[in-house]
Amino acid sequence: VTIGDELLLGYTVDSNAAFIARTLAELGVEIVRRSTVGDDAESIGAAVREALDRTGAAITTGGLGPTADDRTRPAIAAVFARVLRRDDAVLARIESRFRALGSAMPPSNLVQAMVPEGARVLENRHGTAPGLWLEDDRGRWVVMLPGVPREMRGMLADVVVPLLRERVQARRLRSAPVVLSRTLRTTGIGESALAELLGDAGGASVEGLPLAYLPGWAGVDLRLTARGLSREAAAQALDRAASKLRARAGRYVYGEAADDLAAIVLDLCRARGLHIATAESCTGGLLGARITAIPGSSDVYVGGVVAYDNRIKEVALDVPPELIEAHGAVSESVAAQMAAGAAARMDTEIGVGITGIAGPGGGTPDKPVGTVWTAVQLSGSVETRRRVYVGDREEIRQRAAQGALDMIRHAVNPTG
Amino acid sequence: VTIGDELLLGYTVDSNAAFIARTLAELGVEIVRRSTVGDDAESIGAAVREALDRTGAAITTGGLGPTADDRTRPAIAAVFARVLRRDDAVLARIESRFRALGSAMPPSNLVQAMVPEGARVLENRHGTAPGLWLEDDRGRWVVMLPGVPREMRGMLADVVVPLLRERVQARRLRSAPVVLSRTLRTTGIGESALAELLGDAGGASVEGLPLAYLPGWAGVDLRLTARGLSREAAAQALDRAASKLRARAGRYVYGEAADDLAAIVLDLCRARGLHIATAESCTGGLLGARITAIPGSSDVYVGGVVAYDNRIKEVALDVPPELIEAHGAVSESVAAQMAAGAAARMDTEIGVGITGIAGPGGGTPDKPVGTVWTAVQLSGSVETRRRVYVGDREEIRQRAAQGALDMIRHAVNPTG
Repeated sequence: VTIGDELLLGYTVDSNAAFIARTLAELGVEIVRRSTVGDDAESIGAAVREALDRTGAAITTGGLGPTADDRTRPAIAAVFARVLRRDDAVLARIESRFRALGSAMPPSNLVQAMVPEGARVLENRHGTAPGLWLEDDRGRWVVMLPGVPREMRGMLADVVVPLLRERVQARRLRSAPVVLSRTLRTTGIGESALAELLGDAGGASVEGLPLAYLPGWAGVDLRLTARGLSREAAAQALDRAASKLRARAGRYVYGEAADDLAAIVLDLCRARGLHIATAESCTGGLLGARITAIPGSSDVYVGGVVAYDNRIKEVALDVPPELIEAHGAVSESVAAQMAAGAAARMDTEIGVGITGIAGPGGGTPDKPVGTVWTAVQLSGSVETRRRVYVGDREEIRQRAAQGALDMIRHAVNPTG
Repeated sequence: VTIGDELLLGYTVDSNAAFIARTLAELGVEIVRRSTVGDDAESIGAAVREALDRTGAAITTGGLGPTADDRTRPAIAAVFARVLRRDDAVLARIESRFRALGSAMPPSNLVQAMVPEGARVLENRHGTAPGLWLEDDRGRWVVMLPGVPREMRGMLADVVVPLLRERVQARRLRSAPVVLSRTLRTTGIGESALAELLGDAGGASVEGLPLAYLPGWAGVDLRLTARGLSREAAAQALDRAASKLRARAGRYVYGEAADDLAAIVLDLCRARGLHIATAESCTGGLLGARITAIPGSSDVYVGGVVAYDNRIKEVALDVPPELIEAHGAVSESVAAQMAAGAAARMDTEIGVGITGIAGPGGGTPDKPVGTVWTAVQLSGSVETRRRVYVGDREEIRQRAAQGALDMIRHAVNPTG
């Protein structure tokens, strides 16, 4: 149950719910329903009560702050018919947190020390509001976590996962069935072409496990899910099915689960002592941003040029103006010269050039919106590719950056 | 009700729900509960039944595809006790869509032409699965939309908003109360400092309207919400409260609602005939990507250098190696020279330099993780700023890019 007017009104996209689901899935714990309610006690209480009726276990995020619109504590205390009491140890921790930041605790933060009778206080090392674990005598429980993603994620790892792992292990001794899934990430191939490639391994199920196709700008993820098996049997079935898919999808598979193609490309280059320089037009820095989002990217990626204006392609990447005049800025030869110019100027083994039409305007019958030429030069030899990506401006740019990373992967590891 | 195993398991973050909520809020329609369920008919039916019991109106996304895990149609038909019938007009449209793409309709797409008895078919100009509007004799209704965000957004605008507007207008004649909200976007000031600045205008309410502080990497949004008033009274109350907030928060306010600071900076520069060049280190292209995400940015933004490696700062931005040696790469003088180098090399009025430590490693007691120096040069005069941003690597980078945009805004419009 994620709580907050800002979620319900759509001012904030709820990323906590997905993060919690992924984290719990790794423990073999399945979410069966997710609800979002606003900051009113009645809605919060109703949603938690329904969740407990459904499964006996709920996690909430949000509504633990110090202000008047934070109602999670009293609402859930009421569901469990508990009173709120001031917890002096919690109060002392909040006060010392403020002292450490050099200020006194505002009186409004007092409410964060109010704890439902019988609740277990979960330490929050990432913010002021502690989490709470409330359980009734029938074993039904609610964990309340703060809504700030950084605090929520920290507390989930620090205290909730260890607590749940204990319970899951207790269940596992009774060899209860688990839900496990495994995801193979593919890119550079569309959903239907991939389904054709997978042939009879690509029906609704593989080795008896349901197979889902999840298309996005990063490519098509293939998700296998094992339900109702013991942990060991599920892991074995997933291994068998994943091997079958890998054998068919071959080089389109670049990783598993949450693997980022940028991180994989960096690892491949690092192992071979290769360095990357980028030259971006339509992606405007997105490829550089993808690569540098990975910690430690600096030992492979030296930098790049965002050559948005044609003049910059000339002065910063040595693209001859005649080339642009003859073929247009969005052309194979300009992409190739951008890649070569970046590698030469920045003295790297690998140069990447991207030029395209991200839209919404600027398309022509010959070069419709989405047309992107990408070039990768590796030690003097250049490969180029034309793609017409679908989607809006942002999707086209994201797909172009991902496509460029995939071209580097293939260039660096041609037989892998 | 958003439908899909990938949402429930957390493989996809649900952006549809927030988009729908924002769109409906503009019509004065309030979402009171959001639910997410997996791809099974029983859960879908239960969630829709509960939503109808709660409000009499529900919107679903997802589960309208051609594969076996798409169960929305039969599940909701069952809730309304309707049978599914093949709709020949729908079938013809799907077949012609495939023909236009040069292929035959796969037999699996036949199910997309199955329509619950009495349902209104909503044309989908953005994909194959049509939407459906189902209503019972008590006036309770469900709108079913596809889950692919591009298709869902297109259909929401094409057909759902016009249909809902009709109903809302019918209600408004009876001057029914609406829910309206207004958001002011601030940046460059923390939540508590902002609350202090707002003084008595910054309690839990302003002019009788509740005020919410919504912090994020873009800054702190201030959201005012008017409930239970007529449309006219709500709009007037929001105007009064927003003016009061603007008078106090002054130049920290850069826009409203979903305004993007990059778009605002581009407009300011365009009006003054100014051009921007960027030089990025820790943000690695993110600032360029933010700017070029805005259509039409090319008349202001000419390009930039991603100078991730110090050598690139020297060869592409003319930062003297002695400067880096004396002050370190993360320093005021290096940021200033990066800005100057970008403006000089790319021949623009404005140059921006960003250098910092995004973490997780690389921090020192003097320069902890999050330390970022930013410089903006405008026609020869340079302003610099040091900030220590909190958050993880990605948050620090996003905050740094946003901070740089805000510095451009202030430089270009010092009295605005």
